[in-house]
Amino acid sequence: MVKKFEEKTLSSESIYKGKIIDVKIDEVKLPDGKTSKRELIDHPGAVAIIALTDEGKLVMVEQYRKALEKSIIEIPAGKLEAGEKPDMTAKRELEEETGYRAEQLDFIVSYYTSPGFANEIIYVYKASGLKVVEDQLQGDDDEFVELIEVTLDEAVKLIEEQRIHDAKTIHAVHYLMLQNKG
Amino acid sequence: MVKKFEEKTLSSESIYKGKIIDVKIDEVKLPDGKTSKRELIDHPGAVAIIALTDEGKLVMVEQYRKALEKSIIEIPAGKLEAGEKPDMTAKRELEEETGYRAEQLDFIVSYYTSPGFANEIIYVYKASGLKVVEDQLQGDDDEFVELIEVTLDEAVKLIEEQRIHDAKTIHAVHYLMLQNKG
Repeated sequence: MVKKFEEKTLSSESIYKGKIIDVKIDEVKLPDGKTSKRELIDHPGAVAIIALTDEGKLVMVEQYRKALEKSIIEIPAGKLEAGEKPDMTAKRELEEETGYRAEQLDFIVSYYTSPGFANEIIYVYKASGLKVVEDQLQGDDDEFVELIEVTLDEAVKLIEEQRIHDAKTIHAVHYLMLQNKG
Repeated sequence: MVKKFEEKTLSSESIYKGKIIDVKIDEVKLPDGKTSKRELIDHPGAVAIIALTDEGKLVMVEQYRKALEKSIIEIPAGKLEAGEKPDMTAKRELEEETGYRAEQLDFIVSYYTSPGFANEIIYVYKASGLKVVEDQLQGDDDEFVELIEVTLDEAVKLIEEQRIHDAKTIHAVHYLMLQNKG
């Protein structure tokens, strides 16, 4: 792990411990010896799933995002539960949000979403061989999502219209475009 | 703006108002009439710049990210100042972080980084016709960054090595790969 320009923690103040995020303020010693403060969000991490139907359609969910005060269309995703390995989260969230179980699940990449202030990491999986499950797992009772299946061309249009408007879903669409171009 | 499954705000509690982020907890009325709480981060928004040298190299910066406790390599980026339009932020941040001024700056796309809990939006620009400035703007005095210029193949390798490990930089690399494939 590269530590160039490391900022050593002088003190750490817990501001809030929530259901999903914790907030803390760290006082740090900078490389030049001065001090500064860093506002930091601790997040459990998440998964996102690039799920393709046998017809080659991309599985999406539309949901209301309170942070944005609007509904957007995203690939299925969800937070890691305590002690849960990312591939298990991916299987669980895919089933909860879409009603599909995947015969094939492959890890693609991981990335931090907002390294300037948050440690949220997303583990991205590709799912194929989708089968509708009879006894669908129920998700969180405060989540309302609608299943949408789109072609890659339709997804590109949804990005232009900003109905798709988040980094992980745009990443998923570009990933598939690159795969198609070989 | 689509409001499907809208969550109406019943009350909002401010937890923290910081230099970069504000934290609030909203109590919301769900589509089924039940209530829930949403932990929300208010962020001013940011820009990121896909800057290409005349030799076709991608301009990057390496910096320590306290939230991750490690250094990663990213495309230049920075927060919007109050009242600043994104294209001005892009010009300013490019110069502060890299010492380059761009003859050509084109808006590419915008996206939310973490719609589940934050309203941070990133406006992405492509910069070309880069000239080294004599009288470089100085950035924040708590930011230490090192300039790195890489080919697209080198960038792909840095993603595999997780030295590039954030969504906006992976997006930038994929964007250029798609451009190259026509």
